[in-house]
Amino acid sequence: MASRTDLAYTVIDGGSITTPKGFKAGGLHCGLKKTTRHDLGAIVCEVPAAAAGVYTLNQVQAAPLKVTKESVGEAGTLRAVLVNSGNANACTGAQGEEDAYRMRDDFAAQLGVTPHQVAVASTGVIGETLKMDRVSSGMAELPARLAATPDAADDFCQAILTTDLVEKSVCVALPIGGKTVHIAGAAKGSGMIHPNMATMLGFVTTDAAIGSEPLAALLRQATDVTFNMITVDGDTSTNDMLLAMASGLAGNEALSEAHPDYAAFASALIYVCEVLAKAIARDGEGATKLVEVKVRGARSDASARAIAKTVIGSSLVKSAVFGADANWGRIIAAVGRAGEPIDPETIDIRIGAIVTLEQSRPVAFDEEAALAYLKGDTVEIHVDLHVGEGEAVAWGCDLTYDYVRINAAYRT
Amino acid sequence: MASRTDLAYTVIDGGSITTPKGFKAGGLHCGLKKTTRHDLGAIVCEVPAAAAGVYTLNQVQAAPLKVTKESVGEAGTLRAVLVNSGNANACTGAQGEEDAYRMRDDFAAQLGVTPHQVAVASTGVIGETLKMDRVSSGMAELPARLAATPDAADDFCQAILTTDLVEKSVCVALPIGGKTVHIAGAAKGSGMIHPNMATMLGFVTTDAAIGSEPLAALLRQATDVTFNMITVDGDTSTNDMLLAMASGLAGNEALSEAHPDYAAFASALIYVCEVLAKAIARDGEGATKLVEVKVRGARSDASARAIAKTVIGSSLVKSAVFGADANWGRIIAAVGRAGEPIDPETIDIRIGAIVTLEQSRPVAFDEEAALAYLKGDTVEIHVDLHVGEGEAVAWGCDLTYDYVRINAAYRT
Repeated sequence: MASRTDLAYTVIDGGSITTPKGFKAGGLHCGLKKTTRHDLGAIVCEVPAAAAGVYTLNQVQAAPLKVTKESVGEAGTLRAVLVNSGNANACTGAQGEEDAYRMRDDFAAQLGVTPHQVAVASTGVIGETLKMDRVSSGMAELPARLAATPDAADDFCQAILTTDLVEKSVCVALPIGGKTVHIAGAAKGSGMIHPNMATMLGFVTTDAAIGSEPLAALLRQATDVTFNMITVDGDTSTNDMLLAMASGLAGNEALSEAHPDYAAFASALIYVCEVLAKAIARDGEGATKLVEVKVRGARSDASARAIAKTVIGSSLVKSAVFGADANWGRIIAAVGRAGEPIDPETIDIRIGAIVTLEQSRPVAFDEEAALAYLKGDTVEIHVDLHVGEGEAVAWGCDLTYDYVRINAAYRT
Repeated sequence: MASRTDLAYTVIDGGSITTPKGFKAGGLHCGLKKTTRHDLGAIVCEVPAAAAGVYTLNQVQAAPLKVTKESVGEAGTLRAVLVNSGNANACTGAQGEEDAYRMRDDFAAQLGVTPHQVAVASTGVIGETLKMDRVSSGMAELPARLAATPDAADDFCQAILTTDLVEKSVCVALPIGGKTVHIAGAAKGSGMIHPNMATMLGFVTTDAAIGSEPLAALLRQATDVTFNMITVDGDTSTNDMLLAMASGLAGNEALSEAHPDYAAFASALIYVCEVLAKAIARDGEGATKLVEVKVRGARSDASARAIAKTVIGSSLVKSAVFGADANWGRIIAAVGRAGEPIDPETIDIRIGAIVTLEQSRPVAFDEEAALAYLKGDTVEIHVDLHVGEGEAVAWGCDLTYDYVRINAAYRT
């Protein structure tokens, strides 16, 4: 993804989750997916990495969530995370839990680490038990495939995908107290995307020295303005999980709130999460474009977030964007039903640079120019409410024939 | 619609909004729609009818809402309601308000009644001012078209449609204190349907004698379990309005809570609203079938309603129904994210008669039978939570290619 050097961090072109010191990754096809795409992968750290997780708030949670929460909660460190796609291991009862524990314990044994130093994650179909013979064969082969190379990182990124079309990965570097620290991330997500406190699957690696508590705080803060601000279809998954692992091998003095570079690290972490979140939105099931809704002038940031998420989640707005129709009426209707304090007479709406509504009054605009803009691969919708200073950005995608096609035929 | 005589009321086949004594209706094409379908209609009562309204909770409200609230609020009676389709008269500023008042005042003058005895309603595109010359020509011609015939009622029903495919109307009769009372209704709605305290446009006529206050109370009660329980796309309109008018010409002793037939009247009114609400859901934009979600065993009825609406609103569930895929995983995922108290281990899910989940464990089922059932024109989804006695029913439709086609090209 594009290079950005105007900030305190530098985007590393070609960087990956194995760029931070201490991390290897890998992936292979063990047979859970019907295609030949990889479906089993792992990230392994050569030292115990400080770890933090954010998980779905769906009350129905998949078995691997329980196991991973237990592992991360145990000591706040992880040596590895094992991920399968093709099967969510959700609503699979006692058998599902047994399988998730067996994935954790067997992989830990192969790596020669204790079970609670391994996290597990699954994504795919709900309600089918795992083909554990295939997972076991894959696990046996996986350690030999682990490497700190871009290719091995790509193998991992492919292994976590379901209906995604593209792999999603990013890496940045920044100076922390004179040492170079890297933060990298990989994610998957295309359908059942409406994260609530977490997202589908996201993995962040860093070689920064940082304890698991400040890491958890920063991860939650970053999640609130990135993964929690995207939606593909309004459906919150049973398997959402974002895990961060910090190896500490960059050699910096451990980061805490008192550290002078704490804010710089936080901002770089937000950037990494934002790139991944936007990549998930752009790769939403059936999507042809990324939609970015920017709300300002709300009573508070929280209010702006609620309004931005209502607009980005509107099926009518999403369909209009697909049809390249500058239908601002659907945008203002969504703003009005968000349940947040607004003044219905003071709303401005801009689509890209095209002003369509000022102080809630339609503005004549160039339909040809609007059509041309809406046919692009990124559409920005700006809403200014003029009732306060709150602002927020949300990301989503258009609603297309392909979304229906993909989801009308997913399971069968 | 089908005859039902097992209840305290009888469905009148061929009945319409002009069956209750005192009402005439009519409709014509004045040129607001590009097609030749009617786009201007009215219901007129020969006496002042007790009136009550329920309106959208969207904070952005169209001009006719303001005018109608003023009319209904003035004396609690109405002589007429004038409706146009093809233009919502929403976000049209001072000009829009002026136009809505002019519709009310001019039509009142033609009928020889006072302005506040006329309500107005609009539906269609947001943000364009009304072509008032066309509306005026139509209004001049309309009084001569009004009649108490089924054909005239049909003309009205057609005049209020937008992307709807079918007209929606129902009529019942019941004895009230020895007199025969009729309740009839007409409605429209196909897109931007996620009513919050009201629905798109609904009109109920009755010849019962009832004051505007008990009528308003019963209308709100009926709305909560009917129109407020349907969703097509999760978008609440700026123009939602449900109006009831009672002529009193049935000659019954005025209905109040103390009247022995009050409950029978309430139940007949709920039936009328339910028929119309289900008809809107079945005629949802692009829909190929009606989906009915029945939740029981929730902590409370309110909780059951929230869960039922979350399931019926899930794009993933809706796509699966379109694809005739018995994808109960998406149903339980929606139940889990509804934010209501559940026990994730005690959920039963049944699709029609086919049990797919018992106590949150998958049950092997006949995929062929499920496919055959899901290909029908009505799909029932039953969820039993086993945590209480609360229950609710919600109605919606499937998400199809046609929904996207219709909404990707609506305005342009």
